[in-house]
Amino acid sequence: MALQDALDALSALLGERLSRSKPDLEAHGRSESHFAMTPPDAVAWPETTREVQEIVRLCARHGVPVVGWGAGTSLEGHALAARGGVSVDFTRMNRVLDVRPEDMDVTVQPGLTRRALEEELRATGLFFPVDPGADASIGGMAATRASGTTTVRYGSMRDNVLALEVVLADGRVIRTGSRARKSAAGYDLTALMLGSEGTLGLITELTLRLHGRPEAVAAGVAAFPGIGGAVDCVIETIQMGLPMARIEFVDAASAAAFNAYAGTDLPERPHLLVELHGSETAVAEQAELFGALVAEHGGDAFEWSTREEERRHLWRMRHNGYYAIMAAHPGARALVTDICVPISRLAEAVEQTQADIAASGMPGPILGHVGDGNFHATLIVRPDHAGDLDTAKGLAHRMAERALRLGGTVTGEHGVGMGKTGYMAEEHGEGWAVMGAIKAALDPQGILNPGKLVPGN
Amino acid sequence: MALQDALDALSALLGERLSRSKPDLEAHGRSESHFAMTPPDAVAWPETTREVQEIVRLCARHGVPVVGWGAGTSLEGHALAARGGVSVDFTRMNRVLDVRPEDMDVTVQPGLTRRALEEELRATGLFFPVDPGADASIGGMAATRASGTTTVRYGSMRDNVLALEVVLADGRVIRTGSRARKSAAGYDLTALMLGSEGTLGLITELTLRLHGRPEAVAAGVAAFPGIGGAVDCVIETIQMGLPMARIEFVDAASAAAFNAYAGTDLPERPHLLVELHGSETAVAEQAELFGALVAEHGGDAFEWSTREEERRHLWRMRHNGYYAIMAAHPGARALVTDICVPISRLAEAVEQTQADIAASGMPGPILGHVGDGNFHATLIVRPDHAGDLDTAKGLAHRMAERALRLGGTVTGEHGVGMGKTGYMAEEHGEGWAVMGAIKAALDPQGILNPGKLVPGN
Ligand SMILES: Cc1cc2nc3c(=O)[nH]c(=O)nc-3n(C[C@H](O)[C@H](O)[C@H](O)COP(=O)(O)OP(=O)(O)OC[C@H]3O[C@@H](n4cnc5c(N)ncnc54)[C@H](O)[C@@H]3O)c2cc1C
Ligand SMILES: Cc1cc2nc3c(=O)[nH]c(=O)nc-3n(C[C@H](O)[C@H](O)[C@H](O)COP(=O)(O)OP(=O)(O)OC[C@H]3O[C@@H](n4cnc5c(N)ncnc54)[C@H](O)[C@@H]3O)c2cc1C
Repeated sequence: MALQDALDALSALLGERLSRSKPDLEAHGRSESHFAMTPPDAVAWPETTREVQEIVRLCARHGVPVVGWGAGTSLEGHALAARGGVSVDFTRMNRVLDVRPEDMDVTVQPGLTRRALEEELRATGLFFPVDPGADASIGGMAATRASGTTTVRYGSMRDNVLALEVVLADGRVIRTGSRARKSAAGYDLTALMLGSEGTLGLITELTLRLHGRPEAVAAGVAAFPGIGGAVDCVIETIQMGLPMARIEFVDAASAAAFNAYAGTDLPERPHLLVELHGSETAVAEQAELFGALVAEHGGDAFEWSTREEERRHLWRMRHNGYYAIMAAHPGARALVTDICVPISRLAEAVEQTQADIAASGMPGPILGHVGDGNFHATLIVRPDHAGDLDTAKGLAHRMAERALRLGGTVTGEHGVGMGKTGYMAEEHGEGWAVMGAIKAALDPQGILNPGKLVPGN
Repeated sequence: MALQDALDALSALLGERLSRSKPDLEAHGRSESHFAMTPPDAVAWPETTREVQEIVRLCARHGVPVVGWGAGTSLEGHALAARGGVSVDFTRMNRVLDVRPEDMDVTVQPGLTRRALEEELRATGLFFPVDPGADASIGGMAATRASGTTTVRYGSMRDNVLALEVVLADGRVIRTGSRARKSAAGYDLTALMLGSEGTLGLITELTLRLHGRPEAVAAGVAAFPGIGGAVDCVIETIQMGLPMARIEFVDAASAAAFNAYAGTDLPERPHLLVELHGSETAVAEQAELFGALVAEHGGDAFEWSTREEERRHLWRMRHNGYYAIMAAHPGARALVTDICVPISRLAEAVEQTQADIAASGMPGPILGHVGDGNFHATLIVRPDHAGDLDTAKGLAHRMAERALRLGGTVTGEHGVGMGKTGYMAEEHGEGWAVMGAIKAALDPQGILNPGKLVPGN
């Protein structure tokens, strides 16, 4: 049998670093989200590009699916082995290969997590900005074109990956991009790989742009009487061109969950959480301007601080937002939505979504990277309530349709995975067929992460 | 004959907007650069996406090449009809379709030029940053992934195009991207089209990001005793994270050409031309910091001004740099080079290039967007000197090899066209074959701009 032959050969290659044990398979068959357990047939832990290449070659020879696995934090079942096969876990390829402060770039292996990278860079005065709420792997973040709280200022993975090494479906290894800051030398294969969710190749090395730590950083919180004022304040801040480093929205329900989880005492009302980067004077000037906008939109006094301790506390609280919400619903699963709309349509998108959630009776705190027009509702699905998943799916579906109606996208940052494939035709029209043609050209056997993203896959 | 059938059908479709007159063919067979005249078989001037679609369908049916034409300012013979066929001139599709100040975006047709767009936006308080030295079309700029003097701060076309409408090789029309600021919904087809030089599709509509005009703008000039000091000053400025809006290098020979052409009185030494954007206080603060860096690197006093008149004059002079250099060599043609390297290698790249040019005896002023690590030598080829073109090609070749050796790219912004195809294998290795596979998948007949960019095309 083809699968057995492939696994025998992989065992010979990897020894104990190929596992078929039930716990390992189940650990790679589970996602953060509501999807059913979908275990692979085996899990491989390569340590070198060469080994990844061999794994892919062997799987290609036997027609066995290959699915990359970073930290498994993706929210649409991206890394689940929908058609079985081999889960390629990058945890052992987690080294920083080269930090070059003089060029403000760094080369890393894909299994490195963003927090580990942050640690490694601490002494350099440089930082890597993209920060999803989970401690995701850099390879997984590239594969999903992730973004985070600082994207409004520093961009997403699309803007912060300079070059990649990728193992293709036939085992060839390519290098895309270079360390030059820009290039017009042909098709942008780096951008094509970013967001391809392991369906076009496995990323084995990444060169990232770094940014200098700003001279001064201020962070603060403002509470608003209602969603409308908070969102309008964001819209005006962006339109005025205030260079916010972060501008995050959390609704009253999220604020309550934060209080319970992190011991904070936020009023249970909508908030904006912001951060400002620049010189001492620039930061003070921006804080004053932003404070005036908050007041204009009916918010409480904007309180801010440049004390590192307070800032850390604030962003730890925000990054733990999902875990705080889940902690308030022990045993529940979440369906996390993720739409992004043009900024002028943000207020109606958030308000209609909140009204819809309220009408459903389902808990669904809203938070998001509103400076980009992107927000999430975390819909709470109780394990023993048969109707919950359908209710949540209905709400998520109406959010997705709303995003498209308002000129936006069904996923601002989480990606397609198993959960959003059904919207691709509507969002992209014939463009989706073009994605399928590219997939067929680069992976004619369809062994890379099958069952996701492209038509008929 | 297939060609004749296609042209007859196109005539029926377009009437006088299809031309086979010698002057029209020759106007579309000539480039800014040193390439031989390569006229198409006909020139078409469509006015709607529908017409572009019909043109492509007819050409596809008869296997006739289709080559987009924007403003014809590309420097590697990109828009020349290397295999004959129909030149599709977008000059009549030059409207601004929709300006949305509240979302800071604009939708335009591809034939609009960047200066015309600038005019249209004047009243809005917004601007589009990408500014190649020529008055290029927005479609051509997208097709070549152009950049300019402000890329160091605002990015290139890669960063400033949100969405496209594209006519594919079989006449299908797709829309890529959306007006949302970010998305993780599948393959980044927008990025794939940017820089594809008309080989994957014809762009018929573009939605661009706009930026708010800064409260204050300061511009200034600093002269340096030698190239080393100027380039080291740039490197340190970037490494310090000073948010320069522009930082351009011109060498002594360029300064001399500017003086002759624009009536300026720059000392005939290397210069940096810079611009700063921000609040009044931020700009003053940055100017002071930059002035200190200039002094540290042996430069003359950094003179700057916030007067609009002076700034305009400065950047008009810079944008006319190429024409100034050409005016000093009446009748000559130019071979304009375009390499980009990691910033830490910039000094050696510029110095080795200048030494090589000096040794050749050929005039070759150097200037460039050095904040990105990108610079050009304009090599002067006299019409009646048989050896000049070979000398220039030798210098250009050594520059390209130098760029690759230093971890950079053979083209920072001008693109591949006919001139750089020979370096694609070396720069991209197997990645070039991947580009070929994508091309074959989307344009199996190879009718879109054949003879360029991809292998065996
Ligand atoms: C609490 C929480 C908060 C979150 N917040 C954000 C947020 O703010 N922004 C955001 O963008 N996302 C967010 N996410 C989603 C998730 O963190 C991101 O999608 C992240 O990029 C996934 O990285 P990962 O390493 O966990 O990838 P995985 O889940 O392991 O894999 C994701 C996809 O990438 C593929 N893949 C993994 N590694 C590779 C590789 N080396 N080569 C090729 N393909 C590979 C997988 O096959 C899969 O298709 C959040 C998730 C949670 C649980
Ligand atoms: C003086 C001077 C200075 C310059 N400075 C810069 C600079 O600073 N930065 C920079 O990047 N470049 C620069 N350039 C090069 C040139 O201006 C750019 O390459 C520009 O983007 C070309 O635009 P265009 O409209 O002239 O395109 P064209 O030359 O008409 O075409 C360029 C390519 O795009 C294709 N194309 C055109 N329109 C479309 C369309 N609608 N759909 C699909 N394909 C299309 C053509 O087929 C061709 O392959 C300079 C050129 C000159 C002469």
